[in-house]
Amino acid sequence: MPISDPIIADRVRRLRPELRRRKVQALLVTDPLDVGYLSGFKGEDSWLLVGSGKGWLLTDFRYAEQAEAECPDFALVVRRAGLVEALASIVRRKGVKRLGFDPDTTMVSLLSRMRKGLKGVRLAPVPRALSSLRVHKDASEQEAIRRAVRVAEEAWAVFREIVALGMTEQELAAELDHQMRLAGAEGSSFPTIVGIDASAAKPHARPGRKRLRHGSVLLVDFGAKVGGYVCDLTRVLFAGRISSHARRIYSLVHKAQAAAIACVKPGAALAEVDAAARRVITEAGFGEQFQHGTGHGIGRQVHEAPALGPRVGKGLLEPGMVVTVEPGIYLRGRFGIRIEDDVLVTATGHEVLTHVEKDLGAMIL
Amino acid sequence: MPISDPIIADRVRRLRPELRRRKVQALLVTDPLDVGYLSGFKGEDSWLLVGSGKGWLLTDFRYAEQAEAECPDFALVVRRAGLVEALASIVRRKGVKRLGFDPDTTMVSLLSRMRKGLKGVRLAPVPRALSSLRVHKDASEQEAIRRAVRVAEEAWAVFREIVALGMTEQELAAELDHQMRLAGAEGSSFPTIVGIDASAAKPHARPGRKRLRHGSVLLVDFGAKVGGYVCDLTRVLFAGRISSHARRIYSLVHKAQAAAIACVKPGAALAEVDAAARRVITEAGFGEQFQHGTGHGIGRQVHEAPALGPRVGKGLLEPGMVVTVEPGIYLRGRFGIRIEDDVLVTATGHEVLTHVEKDLGAMIL
Repeated sequence: MPISDPIIADRVRRLRPELRRRKVQALLVTDPLDVGYLSGFKGEDSWLLVGSGKGWLLTDFRYAEQAEAECPDFALVVRRAGLVEALASIVRRKGVKRLGFDPDTTMVSLLSRMRKGLKGVRLAPVPRALSSLRVHKDASEQEAIRRAVRVAEEAWAVFREIVALGMTEQELAAELDHQMRLAGAEGSSFPTIVGIDASAAKPHARPGRKRLRHGSVLLVDFGAKVGGYVCDLTRVLFAGRISSHARRIYSLVHKAQAAAIACVKPGAALAEVDAAARRVITEAGFGEQFQHGTGHGIGRQVHEAPALGPRVGKGLLEPGMVVTVEPGIYLRGRFGIRIEDDVLVTATGHEVLTHVEKDLGAMIL
Repeated sequence: MPISDPIIADRVRRLRPELRRRKVQALLVTDPLDVGYLSGFKGEDSWLLVGSGKGWLLTDFRYAEQAEAECPDFALVVRRAGLVEALASIVRRKGVKRLGFDPDTTMVSLLSRMRKGLKGVRLAPVPRALSSLRVHKDASEQEAIRRAVRVAEEAWAVFREIVALGMTEQELAAELDHQMRLAGAEGSSFPTIVGIDASAAKPHARPGRKRLRHGSVLLVDFGAKVGGYVCDLTRVLFAGRISSHARRIYSLVHKAQAAAIACVKPGAALAEVDAAARRVITEAGFGEQFQHGTGHGIGRQVHEAPALGPRVGKGLLEPGMVVTVEPGIYLRGRFGIRIEDDVLVTATGHEVLTHVEKDLGAMIL
């Protein structure tokens, strides 16, 4: 019989004060990423109900065996009918009168169905119920992100040997994705961005049929997903030679990134990390060419809280947060430079989790 | 200047009667798949507002250039502030008093924000606004699915040459995914399922470290995404030899699938297609080992309407629907067999879009 998982028990424990604060007897968790975080379950189409006692996992026959193995801390309900019906039956049995749900992950149609199916139960929104926990990565999550980084970096090393003149953006992206899978990734963190020259100037370019030529600027934004956690890296390579203009822009972005990373520590304002990078770029006259935020949290998703940008309000960095730091300068029609690393906020400062070389001298193919 | 796209114009035209029926002056479309379907836009984080005149696409600087090129039929709003603020400004300008939204794709928190940001506007749910259109694939969508099938089948042919004893499920899945990318796929339709022996008995198994041995049963469920459309195929291969038991189960599933495919035509009950496959399997005594539905629609998503199952209500097949037909028998702890093809409902009957061999003789490696 599987034994209780202390990591899971700790996450559930950290959730309970929020339930009390919101005066709900139980919280319904429906988003698969939240379900996995709170229970260890890796399947789909399953919900958690978490209250004061042992929680429940509502699943179906497809996942019954898997749920039993993965979720020793939850009572298992293998439903035959719909999820709302299964939920209603537990809620009735447990006497739940006030049930919380996350409005950021619950569709309007599901809320309507629950209102009909759970007569007499008050449904109360609990905003950011799980995301406020997930923003602080515990030791096992930090280790998962480190593993994702190792896989991505191993693949990158092989990829650098594969890159050759004449290859298209699509071929380059396919090769890097394949190398990440072979290195142990479940998949890519997101659709890999490979942009050559003018395509590199579009922050979210899709890989196309453009081919790598001598003198090209090659921007690659990629990450591996391992154990449900992602990393997110950007590097720019130069094919054979680098123009003095590109050299200047690269150094500027590199300097802006270093300034932002230096700010990362507990208590630092999220907006200040962004401002540190933006100041360097703006003072050099390229403020208009850096239109996105400086970074974002990563974890189970490639974009999660906190956001690092100019309009992110008054939030502060806290220990356990993992953020990207990725300033860029985009010269429309010519090329773009972005340098991105993943940074853990430690108790006293920060640790850069990604180690792939980024000194300009090392970026020339 | 890009010219109007007749396919897009036709989709918008088909949507309008539903807006009149629901008495909304305009419909807000937020799901990226719906936005792409209705406008041709391939980016993210953008919304459509469709009413009686020319529609609006609300996007941001990242996608401005792309939206201009891809969406000649929509007026472009490149927002600086939030999406709700940009929406409020158009809604006010156009005098919209009753705005429709899709409750199946709208989060509760977004609805709350719209209620606050769109004072004086009645927000009315329009269920299945887009999915009821998307269920009938027009000629360009059928062609996109055919392209996805060609890519998947080309990759499958290469994959069959690569499969070798000693490879793990993970390695096999990575190779097939890579071949699909090299053949022109944007990616896989879903995480490729590769199950060997007992893992093949789990309908949704994740590829693991199990290795292909002489005598193994190898189940592969895969598909390519091309031009935003997917296909979905399952084939079972036998490594070197096939037991008489597996031979019998394979023939049974093959016969069940043929019976279901024979039912596919306009006016056939969705439940009857399922029943046709289920009857063959149940009469042979394996009803309990076939617990999932016989099929589902495919298109922009790998699971869309209509569902073919025992409890799908009174719906009928209609021309332009594309469904999978995929009965299976799963012998827990031993092996599983599923055979899956994609079938288009034509004006008079059906056309099987997938052509990969499935005769038992051809499945032995």
